[in-house]
Amino acid sequence: MREGFAFVERARDGDARRGTFTTPSAVVETPTFMPVGTLGTVKGLTPAEVESTGARLILANTYHLWLRPGPERVGALGGVKRFMGWPHALLTDSGGFQVFSLSSDNRIDDDGVTFKSHLDGSKMRLTPEESMRVQGLLGADVAMLFDQCPPADAARPVIEQAMRRTTAWAHRSLAAPGPATQARFGIFQGGTHVDLRLAHLEEIAALSVDGVAIGGLSVGEPIPEMYRVLADVAPRMPTDRPRYLMGVGTPADLITAIGHGVDLFDCVLPTRNARTGQALTWTGRVNVRQARHKDDERPLDAACDCACCTTFSRAYLHHLVRAKEMLGPRLITQHNLHFYGALTRAAREAIEAGRYAAWAAATLAAMRDGDEIGAPDAGPRTRRLSRG
Amino acid sequence: MREGFAFVERARDGDARRGTFTTPSAVVETPTFMPVGTLGTVKGLTPAEVESTGARLILANTYHLWLRPGPERVGALGGVKRFMGWPHALLTDSGGFQVFSLSSDNRIDDDGVTFKSHLDGSKMRLTPEESMRVQGLLGADVAMLFDQCPPADAARPVIEQAMRRTTAWAHRSLAAPGPATQARFGIFQGGTHVDLRLAHLEEIAALSVDGVAIGGLSVGEPIPEMYRVLADVAPRMPTDRPRYLMGVGTPADLITAIGHGVDLFDCVLPTRNARTGQALTWTGRVNVRQARHKDDERPLDAACDCACCTTFSRAYLHHLVRAKEMLGPRLITQHNLHFYGALTRAAREAIEAGRYAAWAAATLAAMRDGDEIGAPDAGPRTRRLSRG
Repeated sequence: MREGFAFVERARDGDARRGTFTTPSAVVETPTFMPVGTLGTVKGLTPAEVESTGARLILANTYHLWLRPGPERVGALGGVKRFMGWPHALLTDSGGFQVFSLSSDNRIDDDGVTFKSHLDGSKMRLTPEESMRVQGLLGADVAMLFDQCPPADAARPVIEQAMRRTTAWAHRSLAAPGPATQARFGIFQGGTHVDLRLAHLEEIAALSVDGVAIGGLSVGEPIPEMYRVLADVAPRMPTDRPRYLMGVGTPADLITAIGHGVDLFDCVLPTRNARTGQALTWTGRVNVRQARHKDDERPLDAACDCACCTTFSRAYLHHLVRAKEMLGPRLITQHNLHFYGALTRAAREAIEAGRYAAWAAATLAAMRDGDEIGAPDAGPRTRRLSRG
Repeated sequence: MREGFAFVERARDGDARRGTFTTPSAVVETPTFMPVGTLGTVKGLTPAEVESTGARLILANTYHLWLRPGPERVGALGGVKRFMGWPHALLTDSGGFQVFSLSSDNRIDDDGVTFKSHLDGSKMRLTPEESMRVQGLLGADVAMLFDQCPPADAARPVIEQAMRRTTAWAHRSLAAPGPATQARFGIFQGGTHVDLRLAHLEEIAALSVDGVAIGGLSVGEPIPEMYRVLADVAPRMPTDRPRYLMGVGTPADLITAIGHGVDLFDCVLPTRNARTGQALTWTGRVNVRQARHKDDERPLDAACDCACCTTFSRAYLHHLVRAKEMLGPRLITQHNLHFYGALTRAAREAIEAGRYAAWAAATLAAMRDGDEIGAPDAGPRTRRLSRG
């Protein structure tokens, strides 16, 4: 692993593991969840508030920052972390996922992708070399190698082609220059085909990468399919480096994937859903918009000690959300990220105590039984956009 | 003055005065500015953040809270202060101004006003008795008596009719029941006619009111006209009770009106303008949207010690505002209110030191000379809506 970086597995309980990922700017206790700060801001929150949720590693989106305000500008201002005032660790994605999902008119070839900006329609081109150049300027602790992420309904030969391209692009990404203080994580593909997943994992893990990420899940496939792949694949990922499941997920997804040995997660769900009034709690989901909360003096989550839950009532949050007051999304975002921080902290403690399976079962049951909304939304729209 | 309330004039310098307004829930040092929390939230900020700007008295709008979430609901939840978690003092306006400016189809008669809600078009009626009933349920420290505010271009007979109605409504408002712990301030009208102003002031001040407010200024008249009226009228307002200039204003307006003896102000300007990227500083206005800030690592205001100015650069704020990120309006709102808090604190110190005129002249000159935008916007739209 690059100088200044280290990963230590501290405890194991079944396939679940408890580790410490050290970067030059943070000590990250794993499993952990990375809040998404797409444009160099976790929407609505200050860095100090993000820090107060327990997060020490956050994610920013290369594609979005590339388009605006531009990597040269961010680089001249000291990189994303200094630009946004985040004192801990940062990871940038490669930009590939957004190029495929947000841009129009994208045409992929063996060299890279040509696409039109979703902001102004201007023509742009992303290659492994350009992705690494941009990520170098953004200056995160961790850069992701450029990959091709096929859609959930892609046929097996399309997935195999994406795997070949991803491997070739990984070699080119690694050959591209970058800051000495920046770690690089490789991504493997393979859809929901376990044989393809294992073959591609072996290829990517064999490279000189500082971490290995599962790409191409949570892109619209049924959740049980994702869980099945994770059960068969995650335990076979390298033990000496962080294992990252990209774009995932719900609290239940995290609990399940941690059980299979995943260390790192990111997802817009807790922040995006907060902005439509959906809170995530130890007793399931709460839709603050619903009329039942109009006169409810209770906090969102009686078991939560965040600034939102210790100060404000459901009635007030309901009023803020209905009146489209900014403070509503802000407070629910803070709660949701605080909850994700508490959830992963509890998972770490359960692994250390050797009682992960029991903790996971009890926690999932309490969420399911208390859920005020119903079955988790597994619709493709929510999941497809889960990487911001 | 009602039990639990007191006003003490502590120092005087020319017509400017430095006082202390005590309510059952706060000690308010005057002159002071009341941040506007229209719907029971100062847009984007927590109560703790509003408190950190120095504010101890804030304003909420009766009209808006009457429509949503409704006074009975707010009353059952303990009143606006408990509902929103504000631990200091609160003032509610009478609702009249918004009925005239925001509702459609309003028809005024000697008994009250019939109008259609700007939210759903439903027909409603506001009378002095209804305003006091609603304000009683909202439970602020200070309620305003229901008045008729004529437009800036009203002819003298129309203004005289509004004065007669306002006096009659003041008597009815005072006769209406209300919480024993709620003070009541009267409002006088008279447009820009000094003779009418002085006559109506005398009528209203003679009532058993705990404070006297200047209504019907900053409604679209030229700023020099407003300043002329203030110079002639404010010094003749009662000395034993707070003097409140409603819906005002810019930093220059505050400095000028404080010089004429005004104690209390409210205006949406620092909060509303923040949401479009306009910051107010000791060296004039800064439009954060402008391209010149793209690469500027300086804070908004080098002389400011608020959380925004001590942490973030103009370049980052510019990026947030351009990318429509919530954090931008939030941080600039916090700065602007912090600046208004610092401005009124400095004014109080200058009065105590007997150097108000010199301080005011120097402060106005620094703002004018450093202003990055140009002459203050005196257009009717900004000023008319200055009461939220």
